[in-house]
Amino acid sequence: MNGRRASVLVLHGPNLNLLGLREKAVYGEETLASIEVRLSELAQNLNLDLTFLQSNHEGALVDAVQSAPGRHQGLLVNAGAYTHTSVALRDALAAAGLPFVEVHLSNPFVREAFRHRSLLAPLAAGVVLGFGAASYLLGLRGLADLLAAPGDT
Amino acid sequence: MNGRRASVLVLHGPNLNLLGLREKAVYGEETLASIEVRLSELAQNLNLDLTFLQSNHEGALVDAVQSAPGRHQGLLVNAGAYTHTSVALRDALAAAGLPFVEVHLSNPFVREAFRHRSLLAPLAAGVVLGFGAASYLLGLRGLADLLAAPGDT
Amino acid sequence: MNGRRASVLVLHGPNLNLLGLREKAVYGEETLASIEVRLSELAQNLNLDLTFLQSNHEGALVDAVQSAPGRHQGLLVNAGAYTHTSVALRDALAAAGLPFVEVHLSNPFVREAFRHRSLLAPLAAGVVLGFGAASYLLGLRGLADLLAAPGDT
Amino acid sequence: MNGRRASVLVLHGPNLNLLGLREKAVYGEETLASIEVRLSELAQNLNLDLTFLQSNHEGALVDAVQSAPGRHQGLLVNAGAYTHTSVALRDALAAAGLPFVEVHLSNPFVREAFRHRSLLAPLAAGVVLGFGAASYLLGLRGLADLLAAPGDT
Amino acid sequence: MNGRRASVLVLHGPNLNLLGLREKAVYGEETLASIEVRLSELAQNLNLDLTFLQSNHEGALVDAVQSAPGRHQGLLVNAGAYTHTSVALRDALAAAGLPFVEVHLSNPFVREAFRHRSLLAPLAAGVVLGFGAASYLLGLRGLADLLAAPGDT
Amino acid sequence: MNGRRASVLVLHGPNLNLLGLREKAVYGEETLASIEVRLSELAQNLNLDLTFLQSNHEGALVDAVQSAPGRHQGLLVNAGAYTHTSVALRDALAAAGLPFVEVHLSNPFVREAFRHRSLLAPLAAGVVLGFGAASYLLGLRGLADLLAAPGDT
Amino acid sequence: MNGRRASVLVLHGPNLNLLGLREKAVYGEETLASIEVRLSELAQNLNLDLTFLQSNHEGALVDAVQSAPGRHQGLLVNAGAYTHTSVALRDALAAAGLPFVEVHLSNPFVREAFRHRSLLAPLAAGVVLGFGAASYLLGLRGLADLLAAPGDT
Amino acid sequence: MNGRRASVLVLHGPNLNLLGLREKAVYGEETLASIEVRLSELAQNLNLDLTFLQSNHEGALVDAVQSAPGRHQGLLVNAGAYTHTSVALRDALAAAGLPFVEVHLSNPFVREAFRHRSLLAPLAAGVVLGFGAASYLLGLRGLADLLAAPGDT
Amino acid sequence: MNGRRASVLVLHGPNLNLLGLREKAVYGEETLASIEVRLSELAQNLNLDLTFLQSNHEGALVDAVQSAPGRHQGLLVNAGAYTHTSVALRDALAAAGLPFVEVHLSNPFVREAFRHRSLLAPLAAGVVLGFGAASYLLGLRGLADLLAAPGDT
Amino acid sequence: MNGRRASVLVLHGPNLNLLGLREKAVYGEETLASIEVRLSELAQNLNLDLTFLQSNHEGALVDAVQSAPGRHQGLLVNAGAYTHTSVALRDALAAAGLPFVEVHLSNPFVREAFRHRSLLAPLAAGVVLGFGAASYLLGLRGLADLLAAPGDT
Amino acid sequence: MNGRRASVLVLHGPNLNLLGLREKAVYGEETLASIEVRLSELAQNLNLDLTFLQSNHEGALVDAVQSAPGRHQGLLVNAGAYTHTSVALRDALAAAGLPFVEVHLSNPFVREAFRHRSLLAPLAAGVVLGFGAASYLLGLRGLADLLAAPGDT
Amino acid sequence: MNGRRASVLVLHGPNLNLLGLREKAVYGEETLASIEVRLSELAQNLNLDLTFLQSNHEGALVDAVQSAPGRHQGLLVNAGAYTHTSVALRDALAAAGLPFVEVHLSNPFVREAFRHRSLLAPLAAGVVLGFGAASYLLGLRGLADLLAAPGDT
Repeated sequence: MNGRRASVLVLHGPNLNLLGLREKAVYGEETLASIEVRLSELAQNLNLDLTFLQSNHEGALVDAVQSAPGRHQGLLVNAGAYTHTSVALRDALAAAGLPFVEVHLSNPFVREAFRHRSLLAPLAAGVVLGFGAASYLLGLRGLADLLAAPGDT
Repeated sequence: MNGRRASVLVLHGPNLNLLGLREKAVYGEETLASIEVRLSELAQNLNLDLTFLQSNHEGALVDAVQSAPGRHQGLLVNAGAYTHTSVALRDALAAAGLPFVEVHLSNPFVREAFRHRSLLAPLAAGVVLGFGAASYLLGLRGLADLLAAPGDT
Repeated sequence: MNGRRASVLVLHGPNLNLLGLREKAVYGEETLASIEVRLSELAQNLNLDLTFLQSNHEGALVDAVQSAPGRHQGLLVNAGAYTHTSVALRDALAAAGLPFVEVHLSNPFVREAFRHRSLLAPLAAGVVLGFGAASYLLGLRGLADLLAAPGDT
Repeated sequence: MNGRRASVLVLHGPNLNLLGLREKAVYGEETLASIEVRLSELAQNLNLDLTFLQSNHEGALVDAVQSAPGRHQGLLVNAGAYTHTSVALRDALAAAGLPFVEVHLSNPFVREAFRHRSLLAPLAAGVVLGFGAASYLLGLRGLADLLAAPGDT
Repeated sequence: MNGRRASVLVLHGPNLNLLGLREKAVYGEETLASIEVRLSELAQNLNLDLTFLQSNHEGALVDAVQSAPGRHQGLLVNAGAYTHTSVALRDALAAAGLPFVEVHLSNPFVREAFRHRSLLAPLAAGVVLGFGAASYLLGLRGLADLLAAPGDT
Repeated sequence: MNGRRASVLVLHGPNLNLLGLREKAVYGEETLASIEVRLSELAQNLNLDLTFLQSNHEGALVDAVQSAPGRHQGLLVNAGAYTHTSVALRDALAAAGLPFVEVHLSNPFVREAFRHRSLLAPLAAGVVLGFGAASYLLGLRGLADLLAAPGDT
Repeated sequence: MNGRRASVLVLHGPNLNLLGLREKAVYGEETLASIEVRLSELAQNLNLDLTFLQSNHEGALVDAVQSAPGRHQGLLVNAGAYTHTSVALRDALAAAGLPFVEVHLSNPFVREAFRHRSLLAPLAAGVVLGFGAASYLLGLRGLADLLAAPGDT
Repeated sequence: MNGRRASVLVLHGPNLNLLGLREKAVYGEETLASIEVRLSELAQNLNLDLTFLQSNHEGALVDAVQSAPGRHQGLLVNAGAYTHTSVALRDALAAAGLPFVEVHLSNPFVREAFRHRSLLAPLAAGVVLGFGAASYLLGLRGLADLLAAPGDT
Repeated sequence: MNGRRASVLVLHGPNLNLLGLREKAVYGEETLASIEVRLSELAQNLNLDLTFLQSNHEGALVDAVQSAPGRHQGLLVNAGAYTHTSVALRDALAAAGLPFVEVHLSNPFVREAFRHRSLLAPLAAGVVLGFGAASYLLGLRGLADLLAAPGDT
Repeated sequence: MNGRRASVLVLHGPNLNLLGLREKAVYGEETLASIEVRLSELAQNLNLDLTFLQSNHEGALVDAVQSAPGRHQGLLVNAGAYTHTSVALRDALAAAGLPFVEVHLSNPFVREAFRHRSLLAPLAAGVVLGFGAASYLLGLRGLADLLAAPGDT
Repeated sequence: MNGRRASVLVLHGPNLNLLGLREKAVYGEETLASIEVRLSELAQNLNLDLTFLQSNHEGALVDAVQSAPGRHQGLLVNAGAYTHTSVALRDALAAAGLPFVEVHLSNPFVREAFRHRSLLAPLAAGVVLGFGAASYLLGLRGLADLLAAPGDT
Repeated sequence: MNGRRASVLVLHGPNLNLLGLREKAVYGEETLASIEVRLSELAQNLNLDLTFLQSNHEGALVDAVQSAPGRHQGLLVNAGAYTHTSVALRDALAAAGLPFVEVHLSNPFVREAFRHRSLLAPLAAGVVLGFGAASYLLGLRGLADLLAAPGDT
C-alpha cells in the first residue's frame, strides 16, 4: 500500500438502488446515494479511494469483479439476493483473489430459510450484518485495517 | 383507480419468446404474440392498459419490476425458469409493492422436482396455472378484480 | 359437448361450510351460499349446469367423485384440508377420468409447511388460488374453456 | 361465564371406544364409560356441564367441533390417531375459536416416530399426556381454570 | 380352530369398488364382484367362511375391524389409499389382535413415492402384492395356513 | 408410601428465576416465588413434602437429580432450555429411577422448531404444558396420583 | 409354454443356507433343504421344473441370473441381504427379462430401517413376505399363474 | 443515555481465555487480555464503560446476562462454542431485553457444519465475524452507535 | 449432414474468460484463446465449423442457445457456474432440440457439494469432465461422431 | 513412458458381458467383444497395450485393480452397478495410485436416483459418459494424453 | 472355555493385504504379515489360538463367518470397506452368534461421510479404532477378556 | 518422554459417578472407584502417572482440559452425555493439543440415535467402546503406546 491510497470497489447487488425509496418500514429511509456519501467521507479519513457500482444484473456484477484486480485492492460487497444464489459471483470473487468484506443491511437469519445460506461468506475476509447502513461503514473500517496490515491475504 | 384506466405490466421470463416455435408438442402451437393479442382484447373489455416485456435476462426483468410503481397498478408475471431460482426477482416484486398475479402455462407440479418450488408464489395476490394460454387470461381477470376492489392490497 | 349443456360437479371439502361465519378476518365475510349463487350466475352465462356438495367426510367426497362420470363432464374442487392428506380423493379423481380444476381461496404457500403439498395438483387440469371467492369464478371459467375445446383431455 | 355453568364438549377419537376391552396390557383395564363417569363427577365439582362424543370417523369429529360454538365454551380432545394425520380436525378447531385442551392416555413420545407430531398441539391451550385416565381429569381441571379466568383466550 | 370353520373378514378400501369399471388399462378388466366369487370358491376348498366389506370411509373400515374379534379369526385387507395414510386403521388392527394379511393388486413400489410406505405392513402377518387379483387368492391361502397352524399368533 | 408423606423435588431450569420480572408480556406477571407458594399449598392438600431448586447451571441440575433417590419419591421438572439440549439431564433422570412429571408454562409447539423436541419427555411419567403456572399445579396432582398408586413405576 | 413344463430358477441369497441351523428363535426350525423339498412337491402339482441355487457371493448370484434366459422361464428370488444393497443383481434381473417373484421369510418392515428398501421390488412381478417358508410356496403359485397366462410379461 | 456514560458488558465464552496461548496458527498471537486493553481504549473514545467476563461455564454466562439489566445498557458477546448449542443463553439474552452484538474472531461458515447455526444471531442487533480481534472493535463501534441513537431497540 | 460441414456452437460460461490469467494453480496456464485455437484445429480434421461465445451473463447464454437452431447442428457447452444454478439455460437447451455435449475442465465431484448437481447433464448427449483443456477436445470428438451418425437424436 | 508402450487395464463391471445380447433397445446392438476390438485398434494408433477383464464379482475386480501397479500405467474403468455401491473398489483404486478414467455407456443422470452418485468419480482423472461405445474410445484417448504428459498425476 | 485354549478367527476385509505396500503415508509401513506376527505373539500370552483370513470377496468373508461356530469362540474383524456396505456380513455375524470385536487402523470419523456408519458396530461386543496396528492388539486383549469371563454374551 | 513417567489425565463426564450404584442391570456392578483402582494398577505397569476427575459440569470439564497442557502428556476421556452435545469440550481438546483416547463403557450405536454422533471422535487419537470397564483399560494401553512412540502426534 506503500505511499499511494488503496482503492476499494463497492458493489451493490439487485434492488439496492431502491433503498429509502421503497419498503421504508423494513429498510429505513436512507437512500443508497446517502450511504455512498457517508462511505466517501469515511474513506477520506481512512485514506481510501472508493468506486461504486450497483446492478440488478448478475453478469454485470461478475464483469465488475473480474475487472477489479489491478485497479482495486479490495471489495466491499452487498450482493443482495445474489448472495444466496450466484455461484458465478462466488467464482469471480475467488478468481479475483482480493480481500473482500460482505455486508448486509438487515439480519438474513431472521428472514426466510433460503436467505440463511451465503455462497460468498466462506470466501469473505469478514462479514458485517444487521446494523442497517452502519454495516457498510463498519465493513469499510474492517477492510481498511486488512489492507493496512502487512501480509494481509 | 378513479376515472382513469389502470395499467398492468405483463412480464414474460426466459424462453417464453419461443412459444409456438419450439417444442410444440409440449407447449402448443400458440405464439407469445398471439397470446398478447388475446390479452389486449380482454384488457379492452376490462378497461385496462397493458405493457408487455419478454426477456431472457434476470436483471432486465428486475429492472422492469423496479420501474413499475408509478407507471403501473399491477403485474401479470410468468417468470418461467426464474420462478424457481430468482431471489432477486422476488425481492423486486416485494419492493414494488404492487399486486401481481403469477401465471404458468403448464402445471409445474407434474414436472421435475426443482420446478415445484416457486419463490414468487408466497408474495403473489393469486396464482393461475395449467390452463395453457388461458392461464394468462384468467390471471388478468383476477388481477382486474383486485384492482377494481376498494382497499385492495 | 355438442348441443347439450355440460354439467360440473362443484366439491367443497371440510370446514368450507363455515365460510363467512367463522374466522372472518382470515377468510372474509362471504358465505359458501353466496359463492354458490355467484357461481350459478356465471354458469348461466357459460352455459353450464352446476351441482354442489360440501362435506367434512373424506369418504363422502370420494363417493361423490366416484359417481360423477356419466352425470358430469368436469369438476371444480376445493378439497380444503384433504388437499394435503387424502390419497383416497386423489385416487378417486384419477379413476373418474374427468377434467377438474383445483381452487383455493387463500394462498397455501404463505401458510404452514404441511399445506405446501397438494396431492391433487399433479392431476389437475388447472389450479387457481389466492383470489378469495374469485378463485372459484376464475376456475369455473377455465374449466368451461376446457370442456368447450374439442379434444379436451 | 357469568352465572351459568360452562359447557364442555369431550371428544374421543378412533379406537378409544375399545379402552379396557382390548390391549389391556397397554392401555389398562379402565373403560371409556368409566372415564366418563369420573369426568362427570369432577365436572360436578368444577361446576361444568359435559357432553361426550366418540367416533371413528374423522368427518364426524369435524362436524362435532363445528357445532360446538354457541353450545359449548371449551373442548377436551383426545383425537387418538387423528392427532397425527387430520388437518381437517385442526382446521375445525381453529375455526371454532374455543379454547381446547389436548389429552393422551399414554406418552406418544415413547411410541413410533409418526406419533411424535401433533397437528393439534400448536393450537391447544394446554396439553396433558402420559397419566392414563388421569390425563383427562387433569386436562379438565386445566380447562376449567381457563374458562373461569376473566379474559381467557 | 378345532371342529368349526374359521371365518375371515375381507376388507376392500376406497375406490376398489371401481375395479374393472374404470382405468381398466391400469387395473385390468376383472371386477371386485368377480374377485369375491373366486375368493369364495377358494374359501370353500380351504374350509373358510368369508365376509366382505368395501368402503370409501376410513371410519367405516375402522368400525369393521373393531367388530371382527369374536366373529372372525383373521382378516384379508386391501386398504387401498388408506394403506399409506391411516394411523386409525393401523391402531384398529393392532387392537383387534387378529392375524391379518395385507394384499395389493399392483406393485406400489413402481408408483409414486407416497405409496412406498405402508402403515399396516409392520403389523401384518404377511404381505402379497403385484399379482393382480391373484394377490387376494395367494393372501387367503397364506392366511388359511396361519389359522390352521397350532399356536398361530 | 405407607404412613409417611412422600417427598417431591421440584426443579426449575435456566432463566425461570426471571419469571414475573422480565418479558411479562410473554410469561405473565407471576413470579417463581408465587408459584412455589401455590405449589406448597396444594402439596399440603395432597399430603406431599416439596423441595425447590432453581439453577442456570446444567451440572447443578444433574447433581440435584443424582441426589434425589433416597430423599425424594418423585420429581416435578421444568427444565426450561435444557429440555431441548441436555442429554446429561436425561441420563441423570434415567439413573435416578424415580417417576417424574415434565411441565412447561407455555406451549413449546408454537415456538421455534428447536423447542419442539424434548429429550426428557420419552422418560417422563407424564407431561403438562401450556397452562401457565397451572401447568405446575396440574403436574403435581398427576404426580401425587402416581405416588399414591400401588405398583407405580 | 406350449406342451413342455416351464422351468423356474430358485435363488437363495447369503446366509439362507443357515436356515434351521442358527437363530432358530428368529427364523424357525425348518431348513433350506426342507423348504426345497416342499417346493419340489408343489412344483410337481403345478407342472413346473425347479433348479435351486444358494450362494453367499453377489457375483455368483449375478452369474446365475445371467444364465437363466433360454434355460428357465421365471425366477423365484429370496436375495436376502443383497435385496437391499445389490444394484448389480437388480441390473442382472432387468437384463434377463424374465418374470420373477421376490419372497422373504420374515417381514422386513418390522426390522431395521436399512431393510425397508428393496432394490428388486420395483422390477418384480410380485412380492410375498412374512409367511415363513410358506412365502416361497405362495410365491411359486403366483409365478406359476403368471407363466401359465397367455401374454404374460 | 442522557449525561452519563453507557455501560457495556463484554462476554467471552468457553476457551476464549486460551487466545494467543494455544493454536496460534489458527487464532493468532493476540491474547484476550490484549484484546480487552484495545477494547478499553476504544471505549474511552466512544465514551463507554466496559465490564469483562470470561467463563467456560454455560450457567455462569447465563447468570451474567441475567444480572446485566439495570447495570449495563448493552452487551458485546462472543459466546464461542455456546453460540451453537445454548438455548439457555439465547433465552437469557431474550429476557435481558438489552441490545447486543454477536462477534466471532474467525468465520464459522468455513468450519464444521455444526458451527454454521447460531442460536443467538436471530436476536442480535448486529453480527461481526471473521476480522480476528478487530471483530470485537467493529462490534463495539456498532453497539455504540445503537446506544447513542434515540429510540434504539 | 449431407454434403455440407456441420456447424457447432461452443459456449463458455462465466469466469472462463479468466482461464490462464487467474488462479493458475487451480486451472492451469492455458488461456481460453489457446483452447479455441486447439478446438479449431481439431474441427478442421473433423470437418466441422465452430462458432465461439463466452459470457458472464446468464441471459446472453440463453439468447445464444435460442439462436442456434437453423445456424448450428450441435453445441459444446461449458456452462461454468451456471451448470449448477440455471434452469433458464436448461430450458433453452431443451427448446433448442440440438444435441449438445457438456464439458468441464476440472472434476466437480471433488469440489463443493453445490457443484455436484448439474442441471444440464440429464439433457446432454454426453458429458466429459476432468481432463483439463482436453475435455473440450474429447467432447468435440464425441459430438462429431453423434452428428455424423445417421439418425442421431 | 520413455521408449516403451504404456499398458492400460480395461475393466468392465457386472452385466457388461451382456452388451448387445440383452436389452438391445436400451444399450444398442454392439457387443463387448466388438467394443474391445475397436479399443484395440485405437490403442494401436495411440501406442498403448490393452488388457481386458470383465467380472460380475466385486472381489474379482478389486483383485484386478490391486494387481495393476507394476504391470499397467493406467486404467479405463466401467464399473457398472459397482460404480454406485462399492467402497471396496474405490479403496482399491485409491491404493493402486494409477490414473484411471471412468466411463459409462449411457447417461446415469437420466436414470434412477441411486445411479446419480459415483463412488469412483471423486478419484478419477476424468469421466466420460453418455456416448455409447464411443465413451470407451474417448476415455482411452483422454487417458493416453494423461499417460503421455510429463508429470502426469 | 474349560481347560482348552479358546480359538479366535481374525478376518481382514478388502485391500488390507496391501498394508505397508501401498499408501504408506496414510496407513504406515507395517504389513499385514507383520501385524499377524504381533497378534500371534500376544495370543500366546493370552492363551488363545488364532486363525487368519484376508479376502477382497464379500462372499468369502461371509462363508468364513458362517464356518466359525464350532471351530472358534470369537472373532476379531476388520471388515475394511465392507464395514460400511455389507448387510450380508452383518447378517452372517448375527447368525454366528459368537462375540466379535470390530477394529479399524485409522479413525473413520475423520474420513468421508460414507465411512461414518458401520453396519457391524451395533452387533459388536466392542470396537477399537484409530490406534494403527495397535487397534488389532487392543481388540484382541478385549476379546480375550470377554472369552475368559464366565457368562459372557 | 525421556526419563520421566508420562502423566495422563483421566476425565469422567456426567453421571459416571453413579456407576455400580444405579442401573446395575445396564451398566454392571463395578463402581467408578473400582475402575480407578484397576486403572492405577495398570498405569503402574505401563509406567504412567494418573490424575482422575469426574464432574457433572460441562464447564468444569472444559477447565480441566484447559489446565492439562504442561501437567499431563495425554488424556483418557469418557465424556458421557457431553460426548454428543458439547462443542465447548471439543474446542478445549483441540486447543489442548494433547493426544487423547475416547472411551465408552457401552456401545452407543445400539442406543438412541442422538448417541450415534460423537463430537469428540474426529479429534481422538483412538476410540475404544463396548467392553464395559475394560474399555478404560484398553484405552489406557493404547494411549501408553502413543505416548511411548517417538514422534507421536
